[in-house]
Amino acid sequence: MNYDNIFAGHLDGLRKEGRYRVFADILRTRGAFPAGRRHAAGEISPITVWCSNDYLGMGQHPAVLKAMYDAIDGVGAGSGGTRNISGTTHYHVELEAEIADLHGKESALLFTSAYVANDATLSTLVKLLPGAVIFSDEKNHASMIEGIRHGGGAKKIFKHNDLDDLEAKLRETPIGIPKIIAFESVYSMDGDISPIGGICDLAEKYGALTYIDEVHAVGMYGPRGAGIAEREGLMHRIDVINGTMAKGFGVMGGYIAASRNLCDAIRSFAPGFIFTTSLAPVIAAGALASIRHLKTSSVERVAHQERARKLKAMLRAEQIPVIENPSHIVPILVRNPVHCKIVTDILLNEHNIYVQPINYPTVPKGTERMRLTPSPLHTDAQMEALVRALATLWSACPMANGQFVKLAAA
Amino acid sequence: MNYDNIFAGHLDGLRKEGRYRVFADILRTRGAFPAGRRHAAGEISPITVWCSNDYLGMGQHPAVLKAMYDAIDGVGAGSGGTRNISGTTHYHVELEAEIADLHGKESALLFTSAYVANDATLSTLVKLLPGAVIFSDEKNHASMIEGIRHGGGAKKIFKHNDLDDLEAKLRETPIGIPKIIAFESVYSMDGDISPIGGICDLAEKYGALTYIDEVHAVGMYGPRGAGIAEREGLMHRIDVINGTMAKGFGVMGGYIAASRNLCDAIRSFAPGFIFTTSLAPVIAAGALASIRHLKTSSVERVAHQERARKLKAMLRAEQIPVIENPSHIVPILVRNPVHCKIVTDILLNEHNIYVQPINYPTVPKGTERMRLTPSPLHTDAQMEALVRALATLWSACPMANGQFVKLAAA
Repeated sequence: MNYDNIFAGHLDGLRKEGRYRVFADILRTRGAFPAGRRHAAGEISPITVWCSNDYLGMGQHPAVLKAMYDAIDGVGAGSGGTRNISGTTHYHVELEAEIADLHGKESALLFTSAYVANDATLSTLVKLLPGAVIFSDEKNHASMIEGIRHGGGAKKIFKHNDLDDLEAKLRETPIGIPKIIAFESVYSMDGDISPIGGICDLAEKYGALTYIDEVHAVGMYGPRGAGIAEREGLMHRIDVINGTMAKGFGVMGGYIAASRNLCDAIRSFAPGFIFTTSLAPVIAAGALASIRHLKTSSVERVAHQERARKLKAMLRAEQIPVIENPSHIVPILVRNPVHCKIVTDILLNEHNIYVQPINYPTVPKGTERMRLTPSPLHTDAQMEALVRALATLWSACPMANGQFVKLAAA
Repeated sequence: MNYDNIFAGHLDGLRKEGRYRVFADILRTRGAFPAGRRHAAGEISPITVWCSNDYLGMGQHPAVLKAMYDAIDGVGAGSGGTRNISGTTHYHVELEAEIADLHGKESALLFTSAYVANDATLSTLVKLLPGAVIFSDEKNHASMIEGIRHGGGAKKIFKHNDLDDLEAKLRETPIGIPKIIAFESVYSMDGDISPIGGICDLAEKYGALTYIDEVHAVGMYGPRGAGIAEREGLMHRIDVINGTMAKGFGVMGGYIAASRNLCDAIRSFAPGFIFTTSLAPVIAAGALASIRHLKTSSVERVAHQERARKLKAMLRAEQIPVIENPSHIVPILVRNPVHCKIVTDILLNEHNIYVQPINYPTVPKGTERMRLTPSPLHTDAQMEALVRALATLWSACPMANGQFVKLAAA
């Protein structure tokens, strides 16, 4: 059996569909974000990064970097163990306390990523609550879908942000069966926001646990940066809040915040938590500094929203097809993976503008897009250069029926 | 439904079994490893760490720490994205090339942890090879078990390190069905080593892919620190090598090394790789420096083996029940979770020696143990203090039928 041929065949399939992914090899430049450099064919060229999830630029914040230097200086590189076996440092203990406080919960639990946090927590919750049914929004992130699948329990998928459909599915599930409603606050590819209050109402009415993924909101919304649920005064009605330290907070790693018993049960029973080396102290230290900073500073949040609003307005003025939404995410529909790659290649090669094409499986086929993420550090001049380049492309190659009619450089 | 009561009930069950875990809150002291400090009840006391998987002390190595400082200084904190969406930095590219070279493979792929590497790779391999049967050593790590389970395919568990049993199970599986043999080199809790050559012979005979987990060997064995398969001249016969940068290399993160097509297929199809923020550049930079250093320096490996041999001999001389093995791991059987916790509490509180008790589910019930990990940096004086403390405990509380007869402090 020629295994390598089988793998090659799968890859050929991706190439034929035009969705084989090429990773751009980049470096950011400390202190100059969103400026960076791209390595390609042995050459290094300057770029402006327009697709980073370091939404607030906290990955460049002096307080974060200082905390990371100090941690390396104090304790060295890795943690050296799982959380149980020598891998719980005082940085981890302080960070969990800080996150619990951020979300107004009794407790918090760190994971190597928010992906692992979702996967480990959801799969373990089902095992701790035998017979549980999970009600999952149809647009939930892959990590939630995998966690629900790995738990092996029953699931009911409700229509995206549709309270009526969710209630219908809750109503048909007997009382006395444990229920978990799993959803996100900001959906990252469309930028829309869920009806958290309505979902909490239904959870109360039908006795369900609520599990919210706020990874595209923490740091960025709410008076202390705890997310959309904080902004809307609803955090206390959510049972489990999932968040990341890799996006708004600019570092790496994920977490849940919940009751003491729930966190302790996940800590004690989830293989994805138990059997893995803990976050390096340098990461925990950087995240701690970032969370502390954003608890008291709203400058970044205000500027972030202003930049996003302004960019959307500039794009609309040029008839670029922005998906409208109430968040900081600026998606532009292209609807075809080949065209999307051509457009972003032109942006990169001719304009030094780095926007990664987004294709299946990250978004459904036929909804391929560019996804722009303006940060507080993107200047007016950088926004103008971006919009000018896009407008030129769009006027040279207008969209009709969701397809570029003609592509200048194709 | 009172969910919190259900979680509390699960935790009570752990407490009744004596295996509720209490994480020690520690800090290492840079430049002084294995010395560290413990936070408890508002006080900080000095400790000697005896249970870290930073086996070679590379988490303290100046070249590693310098590379980490430099990375923060050059590019900042987090990567800001998934590998596809702005999260591939030049550090990642270089590190993958370095790992591929280390293992003599065409390609390598980074993950946030070796747990995720196992989980994502094994579960995805099964999907890429429909109908595949995985032959899994019964003592494989939780991350391999989870990966195999998540793949949803057929599995056959063979007796630990038993070539006859493995062959019997291969023979009964029809030719033409894809096969994967998944095993480890060094089994971390017992310290025994698998018959890699014999497994490769069977893989060739029956047309199976070989998947080896070398996380407790990379950095520590072989002329360039590529692991046991390198030491035995067998790397070229292994299809997939799984390794970690969090143990022998002292930093964080995991990887696979394999053919270009296999790595590319996992890169393109594994949700656990695709949908998660990449390792922070500071982590990739530190791991890169560590791997490069250990490729040419064997001083650490030689000293490591010498320390382990010496400690085992000292323990044997005191009739402490060490599990014999040919590796660097020094397990001492206690066989009871309550006694194991009492002994390690005495070591910590009265002798400032930190050894975490190891209990179920990390090891089978009835095989609870202490697991000592001497590093090149543990001194003769530290070893003597440890052995003296253990000998005192053992003479005060002799073992009979696998149980302490009497416990001085119980």
